[in-house]
Amino acid sequence: MSKTPQYAEVNQESLYRIFTIPEAPDSTLGRIEKHLSENLMGFLGEHIVAREKPLQAIEQDFQGATVPEDPQFVSDHTEFLLDKLVAHSVHTASPRFIGHMTSALPYFLLPLAKLMVGLNQNLVKIETSKAFTPLERNVIGMLHHLVYQRDGDFYRRWMHSAQHSLGAFCSGGTVANITALWVARNQLLKPTNGFAGIAADGLAAGLQHYGYQRLTVMVSERGHYSLAKAADVLGIGRKNLIAVPTDHNNRVQIAALREKCQQVEADGGKVMAIIGVAGTTETGHIDPLEEMAEVAQQVNAHFHVDAAWGGATLMSSRHRQLLAGIELADSVTIDAHKQMYVPMGAGLVLFKDPSAVRAIEHHAEYIIRHGSKDLGAHTMEGSRSGMAMMVFSALHVIGRRGYELLIDNSIEKAHYFADLIRQQDDFEVITDPELCLLTYRYVPEPVKHVLEQGNAEHIKRLTPHLNALTRYIQKRQREDGQSFVSRTKLTPHQYHSEPTVVFRVVLANPLTTEAMLADVLAEQRKIASRATSLLGALYTEMRELG
Amino acid sequence: MSKTPQYAEVNQESLYRIFTIPEAPDSTLGRIEKHLSENLMGFLGEHIVAREKPLQAIEQDFQGATVPEDPQFVSDHTEFLLDKLVAHSVHTASPRFIGHMTSALPYFLLPLAKLMVGLNQNLVKIETSKAFTPLERNVIGMLHHLVYQRDGDFYRRWMHSAQHSLGAFCSGGTVANITALWVARNQLLKPTNGFAGIAADGLAAGLQHYGYQRLTVMVSERGHYSLAKAADVLGIGRKNLIAVPTDHNNRVQIAALREKCQQVEADGGKVMAIIGVAGTTETGHIDPLEEMAEVAQQVNAHFHVDAAWGGATLMSSRHRQLLAGIELADSVTIDAHKQMYVPMGAGLVLFKDPSAVRAIEHHAEYIIRHGSKDLGAHTMEGSRSGMAMMVFSALHVIGRRGYELLIDNSIEKAHYFADLIRQQDDFEVITDPELCLLTYRYVPEPVKHVLEQGNAEHIKRLTPHLNALTRYIQKRQREDGQSFVSRTKLTPHQYHSEPTVVFRVVLANPLTTEAMLADVLAEQRKIASRATSLLGALYTEMRELG
Repeated sequence: MSKTPQYAEVNQESLYRIFTIPEAPDSTLGRIEKHLSENLMGFLGEHIVAREKPLQAIEQDFQGATVPEDPQFVSDHTEFLLDKLVAHSVHTASPRFIGHMTSALPYFLLPLAKLMVGLNQNLVKIETSKAFTPLERNVIGMLHHLVYQRDGDFYRRWMHSAQHSLGAFCSGGTVANITALWVARNQLLKPTNGFAGIAADGLAAGLQHYGYQRLTVMVSERGHYSLAKAADVLGIGRKNLIAVPTDHNNRVQIAALREKCQQVEADGGKVMAIIGVAGTTETGHIDPLEEMAEVAQQVNAHFHVDAAWGGATLMSSRHRQLLAGIELADSVTIDAHKQMYVPMGAGLVLFKDPSAVRAIEHHAEYIIRHGSKDLGAHTMEGSRSGMAMMVFSALHVIGRRGYELLIDNSIEKAHYFADLIRQQDDFEVITDPELCLLTYRYVPEPVKHVLEQGNAEHIKRLTPHLNALTRYIQKRQREDGQSFVSRTKLTPHQYHSEPTVVFRVVLANPLTTEAMLADVLAEQRKIASRATSLLGALYTEMRELG
Repeated sequence: MSKTPQYAEVNQESLYRIFTIPEAPDSTLGRIEKHLSENLMGFLGEHIVAREKPLQAIEQDFQGATVPEDPQFVSDHTEFLLDKLVAHSVHTASPRFIGHMTSALPYFLLPLAKLMVGLNQNLVKIETSKAFTPLERNVIGMLHHLVYQRDGDFYRRWMHSAQHSLGAFCSGGTVANITALWVARNQLLKPTNGFAGIAADGLAAGLQHYGYQRLTVMVSERGHYSLAKAADVLGIGRKNLIAVPTDHNNRVQIAALREKCQQVEADGGKVMAIIGVAGTTETGHIDPLEEMAEVAQQVNAHFHVDAAWGGATLMSSRHRQLLAGIELADSVTIDAHKQMYVPMGAGLVLFKDPSAVRAIEHHAEYIIRHGSKDLGAHTMEGSRSGMAMMVFSALHVIGRRGYELLIDNSIEKAHYFADLIRQQDDFEVITDPELCLLTYRYVPEPVKHVLEQGNAEHIKRLTPHLNALTRYIQKRQREDGQSFVSRTKLTPHQYHSEPTVVFRVVLANPLTTEAMLADVLAEQRKIASRATSLLGALYTEMRELG
C-alpha cells in the first residue's frame, strides 16, 4: 500500500484531520479498513493455531522503549501490525485450538464491536452512557433470571432501581469473584452499634469488633487461582482460603467441608464464604451445590458460585440440572466471554439480593451521586466500556435455544472424544467430561499395562517420566502450530494423588470436527515417537521396576 | 432492511453459519456492516450531545428480563440497536460535549478495534496472545520511559523479562490505583522471619507482626474516589484514607501533610502510602510532587502518583515540567482512554522498580506458571483483551509531537475559555485551569457585586441559592442536548470553603472551537433567565441581606 497523506505532519490541520469523519468508502481510511478486514478474514480462515516463530524473535519487533517522536502514516503502521502482530497472534478461533476457554466468535459481533468502540460510551455514569445504562441493567437482569428464575414483578421492581443492582458487569471472572467476596466480607463485618463497618474502619477493626480470630473462605482444591488473588487483595490472606479435598470426580467432599468449617469455628475463626465451583477450570466438574448451600446456611456463611465457565450451561434444558442449587447462591460469577461466545472482556457477578451491593457502595461529588442510576456506584472498576452490548446482542441473535444447541453439542463432542481416547492403546482419559472439558495423556502401551496393576510404588516412579513426556508433547504441538491443547497438573485418585501432568481440552468451538480430534491424537502420538530420550528414560525406569 | 436468512432457525447448520466467515462484502453481513458504519458516522457527525428522551422512557425498551427463547435475525436486531440504543447514546465525541474526560477518538482506531476484537486474544497468557504479550510489554515500557526516562540498557534488561514487569495494563485508573496500593500494602507487610507475609497470612496478622495500630494513606482532599474504594477493598478502611487540606490552587499543603503523617505515627499507626494527584478529577490541578516525594521518603512510605488524567501531559515539552517529581514515584497511574485519545478500557499502572510486582505475584498449574512470560502473573484482572494494541497504535500514528500539539492546544483553549468567562458580567471562574480543566458558574451581576465584598455571612446565605441555580442550569442544558458541561461541588478558598456547586469543563476535544465555547455560555445564560423561581428566591435572599 502506498504512502498516503492521512496524517504524518505535525501541524494542527493534519492532526485534526484524524479526528474528522473520513469520506467513506474510497477514502484512504476506507481502503485501509477494507485491507484490514480482508486480512482479518484471512487470518480467521486459517485452521492453524499459530505460526512458528520463537517469542524471543517476536520480542525483537517490540523493543523501542521511547514513545516515537514523529507520527507514522496509518497505512505504514497498519502494514507493521499485520506483519509483526497479527501474523504472530494466536488463532483462538481455530477449530483446532481446543486448549483454552477462548474459542470462536459469531461474525455478527465484529461490526458491532466497531460500533461499540466508536460510540465510546463510559458506563460508570449515565452522563456518558445514557441508553447503555438501561441496556447493561437489562443484561444483568436476564442473567440474574437465568440463575434465579424470579418472576416478572421482581425484575420490574429491581432491574432499573437506582438504589439497587442485580449484579455488576466487569472485565472478567477474576474481578467478578473479587467483587463477590468483597460484598461477602463487607456484609459480614457490617456497621453496627459502636462500629462504623469494615468499609470505613478497616479489616483489623472489624475482626476485633466482631471477635473473630480470622476470616476464612472454603473452596474445593480445584478452585480457580483468582480466589487466592481475592483472598490476598481483600486482606484475608491466601492461607485462609482453605482448599477442601475433592472426590474422584473433582467435586468437593461435603463431609470434609463440614469438618473444615468446624475446625475453623472451634479455633475462633469465622467462615466468611463457601464457594462452589460450577465447571472447574482444570477438569470442568461441578460441585454438589445444593449440599454446599446447606452447609453455608448452617455456618451462616456467604455462598458464592464460581460459574465463570459453566454458567452458560443453564441455557440447556438437558444439562441445566447439573447446576442444581446455583439458585441458592448469594452471588454467582458468569463470564460471557467463555461459553457465551462474546469477545474478551465480559464478566458478570450476580447477586440474589438486590440490596447486597450496598455493602460496596461508593459516591463522589461529580458523578455516581446519591440517588443517581450511575452504574459506577456498585462496581469495583470505574470507567468501563459498553461491552454489555455484545452480550445483549449475542443473547438476542443466538437465543436461548441457540445456546442450548451449542452447549449440548459441545458436551456430546467431549463424550465422543473421551470414547475415542479410550479406544486407543496408548492414550488414557484422566478425567471424564461432565461439561465439554476433559483431561487425558499419552501413555505407551506397555507402561499402561504396568499402571493398570495399580502398584503405588510403580506409579510413583513412572509418573515423573510420563509428566516430562506430556509436557514435551504439549509444548512441541503448540510450537508446531497445527493444533493446540493445554496442560495442567492434577492429583488423580486412580493414581494415588500422585501429581500428574495431563492434556486439557475444552471443546467449545462448534466448528471442531471429529476428524480434527483424531488428528490431534495422531499428531501427539507422532511427537511422542520422536521423544527418544524421554522414552528411553521411561523404559529404563520400567525395566528397573523388574 | 429486509429479513435475511442470516440465522434465525435453531438447527445446527444455520447456527454454525454464524461462526463461519461471511463472503464479504456483498453478503448479508457485509451489507449490515456497511449500514452500521454509515449510521455510526452519521451519529458521530452530529454535533449534539444527546437526544431528548427521558431515561424512564428508554428503560421501557430494556424491560424483558428473560433470555429470548428464539433467535432474532441479525438485520432485525441491528435495527433495534440503531433505533433504541445508538440513537439514545451520548455523543461523547461531540466537540460540544466538554463535561467529562471522554472525548473524540481518532478515526483510524475504529477499524483497528474491529481487528482487535476479531483476533480475540487473551493477554493473561502467551498461549492465547503470543505477539500481543511483547506488544503489551512494549507499551508499558514506553509509558514507563515517559515517566521515568531510564536509559536503553534498563529497558533492554527489564522490559521483556519473565520475572519482572514495568507495570500492569488494566481496564482503567481505578484498577490501576487499587493495584498500586495493593503492591504498597504487600511490600510494607512483606514476609520476614516468623511471618509469611500479608499475601499469605492476611492483614490482621501483618499489622500484629509489624506492630502497627493501623495503616493509613495520605491524599489531598481532591483525590479521586477510587482511592476510597481501594482503601475499602484492601481492608485498610476509608477512614484511614486521610484527606489532606489543599491550598487555594487545590494542591496539597505540604505542612499539613507532614503534620498528618506525624499524628499517625505518634498514635502508633503507619503511613503506608502518600498519593500525589497529577491532574485532579474535579479541578485539574497538580500536587507539588517533588515535595511530596520528600515527605514520603522521610516517613518511609510508598509514593504513588495518580496521573490517570494528567499523565499524557508528559508528552508536551512546554508543560511536562508541571509534573516535575513524578519520576520519584514508586508507582504511577495513567489512563490511555483519557488524554491519550484511546477508546474506553485502557489504564496502566507503572512501577519504578521492575521487581515491585513480585509482591502481588500469583501462579497456577495450567497457566501463569513460574518462569513463564504470562502477563497474568502480575495483574489484578485475569483474562484481558488486546486493548494495548490501541495504545500502541495511537502512540505510533500520533507520535510524541502530535500529542504535544494536542495537549498544548487543549491547555491554551482552557486559558482562552477562562478569559472569556472573566469577560462576562454574570459568570465567574471558580478554579483556573492548570491543564485543560476549569470550573466556573453563573452568577447574576448584582449578586456578583455582593459576593465580591467577601462578607462571610452573605456568602453563606447566598451560596445555597446559587448552588440550586447551577444545578438547574447544568441539568437543563444536559437534557436539551445541545452541549454538555458537568458539575461538581467544591469548597473554594475565596468563598471561605463554603460548599459551592460549579460547572466543570474538560477541553480535550481538538474540534471544540472558540465559537462553541461562547455558545455554551450563551445557552447557560438563557437557561438561567428562565429559572424564574430560583432567581426569585435568590433575589429575595439578596434583599434580606439588606
